[in-house]
Amino acid sequence: MDTSRWDNETDVLVVGSGAAACSAAIVARSRGADVTMLEKATLFGGTTLRSGGGFWIPNNRFQKEKGIEDRKDDAVRYMARYSFPQLYNPADPRLGLPENEYDLISTYYDTASTAVNYLEEIGAVKAIQEINWTGRPQVDYMEILPENKGIRGRVLYSMGADGKMAYGGELIRQLKTWADGHGIKTLLNHRVTRIVRDQKGDVIGVEASSKDRQVRFRATKAVVFGSGGFTHNPELMLRFQRGPHFGGCASPGSTGDFVYMAGAIGAQLGNMAGAFRAEIVLEQALQDPKGVHNVFYVMGDSIFEVNRYGLRFGDEKRNYNDRAMTHFVWDPLRAEWTNMLVFMVYDQRTATLWQGFPPLPVQGTPAPHVISGNTLDELAQSIGARLAQLATRTGGFSLDAGFAANLKQTVGRFNSFASTGSDPDFHRGDFDYDREWTTFPPTVPGTKWPPEGARNYTMYPLSETGPYFAVILGAGTLDTNGGPIINRHAQVLNTEYKPIPGLYGAGDCIASPTANSYWGGGSTIGPALTFGYLAGMNAVPEPVKQGE
Amino acid sequence: MDTSRWDNETDVLVVGSGAAACSAAIVARSRGADVTMLEKATLFGGTTLRSGGGFWIPNNRFQKEKGIEDRKDDAVRYMARYSFPQLYNPADPRLGLPENEYDLISTYYDTASTAVNYLEEIGAVKAIQEINWTGRPQVDYMEILPENKGIRGRVLYSMGADGKMAYGGELIRQLKTWADGHGIKTLLNHRVTRIVRDQKGDVIGVEASSKDRQVRFRATKAVVFGSGGFTHNPELMLRFQRGPHFGGCASPGSTGDFVYMAGAIGAQLGNMAGAFRAEIVLEQALQDPKGVHNVFYVMGDSIFEVNRYGLRFGDEKRNYNDRAMTHFVWDPLRAEWTNMLVFMVYDQRTATLWQGFPPLPVQGTPAPHVISGNTLDELAQSIGARLAQLATRTGGFSLDAGFAANLKQTVGRFNSFASTGSDPDFHRGDFDYDREWTTFPPTVPGTKWPPEGARNYTMYPLSETGPYFAVILGAGTLDTNGGPIINRHAQVLNTEYKPIPGLYGAGDCIASPTANSYWGGGSTIGPALTFGYLAGMNAVPEPVKQGE
Repeated sequence: MDTSRWDNETDVLVVGSGAAACSAAIVARSRGADVTMLEKATLFGGTTLRSGGGFWIPNNRFQKEKGIEDRKDDAVRYMARYSFPQLYNPADPRLGLPENEYDLISTYYDTASTAVNYLEEIGAVKAIQEINWTGRPQVDYMEILPENKGIRGRVLYSMGADGKMAYGGELIRQLKTWADGHGIKTLLNHRVTRIVRDQKGDVIGVEASSKDRQVRFRATKAVVFGSGGFTHNPELMLRFQRGPHFGGCASPGSTGDFVYMAGAIGAQLGNMAGAFRAEIVLEQALQDPKGVHNVFYVMGDSIFEVNRYGLRFGDEKRNYNDRAMTHFVWDPLRAEWTNMLVFMVYDQRTATLWQGFPPLPVQGTPAPHVISGNTLDELAQSIGARLAQLATRTGGFSLDAGFAANLKQTVGRFNSFASTGSDPDFHRGDFDYDREWTTFPPTVPGTKWPPEGARNYTMYPLSETGPYFAVILGAGTLDTNGGPIINRHAQVLNTEYKPIPGLYGAGDCIASPTANSYWGGGSTIGPALTFGYLAGMNAVPEPVKQGE
Repeated sequence: MDTSRWDNETDVLVVGSGAAACSAAIVARSRGADVTMLEKATLFGGTTLRSGGGFWIPNNRFQKEKGIEDRKDDAVRYMARYSFPQLYNPADPRLGLPENEYDLISTYYDTASTAVNYLEEIGAVKAIQEINWTGRPQVDYMEILPENKGIRGRVLYSMGADGKMAYGGELIRQLKTWADGHGIKTLLNHRVTRIVRDQKGDVIGVEASSKDRQVRFRATKAVVFGSGGFTHNPELMLRFQRGPHFGGCASPGSTGDFVYMAGAIGAQLGNMAGAFRAEIVLEQALQDPKGVHNVFYVMGDSIFEVNRYGLRFGDEKRNYNDRAMTHFVWDPLRAEWTNMLVFMVYDQRTATLWQGFPPLPVQGTPAPHVISGNTLDELAQSIGARLAQLATRTGGFSLDAGFAANLKQTVGRFNSFASTGSDPDFHRGDFDYDREWTTFPPTVPGTKWPPEGARNYTMYPLSETGPYFAVILGAGTLDTNGGPIINRHAQVLNTEYKPIPGLYGAGDCIASPTANSYWGGGSTIGPALTFGYLAGMNAVPEPVKQGE
């Protein structure tokens, strides 16, 4: 080590501390490498720490134990069709996909369960299969597609001390415990600012800043990035995403550092218009841009969403990722995004029964993001007034003149659907996902629910009398999922689509193998753990770089 | 010159040969620089050669001559709102835009007319203002916005030998004539493959390949790229654009070379989901991917477009760019793009009267892209059959089961609108643009049109009897308009948003100042000429680079 140039040396340097980074670090360490992790935040765990903590793992051991057959051909077809619908060709050997896109999906099927099993075997993770409130293993997020075949049980979580499934905090706790116990050096408050290469172009380390001090880290074998997306970088969001977003629940450090650093050394970017998305409470996001304000589930039954015309525009019980995609509808007569802001509308029943489930406040607590009215007309007027207050931050987005009249008609139409149990407009509640994932029993204990004789418990007529409530929603992200392109070894590719020696990536900082889709619960962390595992496995046998 | 390393030397090297490249080359030459242009195709002129040839120039001399006041404050507000609707804030000094985005728009207003005047003064271009078929200077493409104020006359063309406005071929002829007459060296069949920098990182030349030979070009002052977008690179289209496209009318060389080359040296990309768009005839584009098959205008009156549900989804007389944006609507219940393919439907009247205006064939000539049926049911059935034949190339896109029934209802509804002259659904024909830009008199000479007493000549009832016709349309591009970000001097910026010394860009190869909008006719070539002019002007006083 050239002590005049490097402050630290390690075999494998890992940037970030979420699921992707931890998986790479732990796997590399388990194979004998000396490993250092650099995290720019004061907290360890990245976006995983704030997440639900699930990981979508096809063909996992729990499925096998339950006798659920999860064949490669089925799983790959499902992923390929959902991720690349316009290319999908069932008769083609690669299903119509370009080579690298197909490779990543095929590799994902082959490796995901291996990766989790490995992490379990070395004691880094204790996994458990999600069983939902109806007592069944979970379905996927696009279980409607024929290629999905309704296969259940792909969603795993970490198991908490109580033997039950636990959130992302527990997953990070388990990973961090293993890292600490096995000599992985984890440095917080270290912001990596530059990737260092030698004359040949091999990656040999990074520069970081810590408390205004520049620190140079030598990596003799490889640098692995698992540093998150660019949700909290407004310029990158504006310049790459497919439409307007209002933030997201990614950790505050998700500012696209890797996009810049990898871009500076000629990495090829991809999927930059892509994200894992969910609607977000506009006013909370404007007030507190780094907080968690996504609306993952439209909870309750006497509740729906309408756009600026007062019209429903989708099945409110569909998955959050695809629901957020419905916000990107361009209006050629107004030169604006029709559904940029939409309105969750509900009555006192839902406000009471599902209170405390975000964004529904606990009754009696202050909730400035909730707009109310004693009548639907009053509610419409209040929404309009609120939008006017927000105009400077929304491009002057406003309600159509017909909003109030249409809203009343929409209530009538929705109520008739709720009465018959059938929604011919958007088929709400017709699918397993709608009934099991996004419709839970009330949060108020002791409530008898579903109502006796309910034909479709995802819907219930809104009350004939007020008060009524509304929350303004925009599109948001969990995090973006575009960045440098990787190959099936998790190596970062250059603009000639060749690996940049010594550079790996996984998680939301790279062009996700999922593209713009969300295969099932844990479609974020599943690939993060899996390609992190591949990065770790492949980094260890890397030749030692000779340096500058 | 180090003859062992360089094959050629020039002051300013220009890559490409369309409007942006020619403008840069001519301006640099006019200021005394030695200039070489490299074009990879066998034809000179890039996409401009195939284009309409208009250039959108606010506050131009023709407007002044006609007493049309085109104030900066108005023009900038129009551009800012249309390009960044979600950010637009009329009270903000930068109108809500990030600094560079605002700068580029402000600079565009300040420079566009200066640039064209300059090209006219040196004799490189002879300009003429467009007067449309109704005898008026043209309106803009989003004349509906209040910020537009209905200002006319921003659209200029080159003037042909007959004193009339001419297409892009004439513009290129004029530019090339000047270049040839003033000692600009223009080399065809030279594909630039790499940007060469010195130790400091300054750009000092390029490598190119010509007939399998590698040639190295030294540029002592600067390299300017005007090399087009990435329409004809399916992988970049898939990995960056906001939704599926089926090609476009960009010159075949528009394969994103600059994205890769600039990416390799650390340029910061932007607007990569953006494009200048128009619908495209699916089957022609599949058959002949490099040809011109866009549908700029939905010509005729007894004609409309429907989606897979048999429903209209917009004003068919709106501008092509925003019309194509309506194709990107995601369906969360089918995991596909609802309007990925749509159907232009018309009757014998429009087929006859507007024959020969693409995509309507001259009657009696073979037109495999036209689907027909003696009844609407038969037409629906034929469309379904045609889609089935195309399934392997469209992700199996198909008609909804209700298509035929809805189509019949849509005909009835459209016919009632046509009778009253009012389209409450999409306001077709309510706007100057609709009536003047995209509705022309019939191509058949001597036809009396508009019909006597027509209240809205953009619409006419479809015949009660067949035959009926349909053409399948998808989204396409004129060309993409994302790439490296430039500043107001047309310098290419690196990932720290600082200029890369010696590197300039203009036209479709850089992140367009227009973002995703189309300010008016010539919104492509206007910025190309203007930022090309800035590149040329700023390249000449560049210090001589010392080289490697």
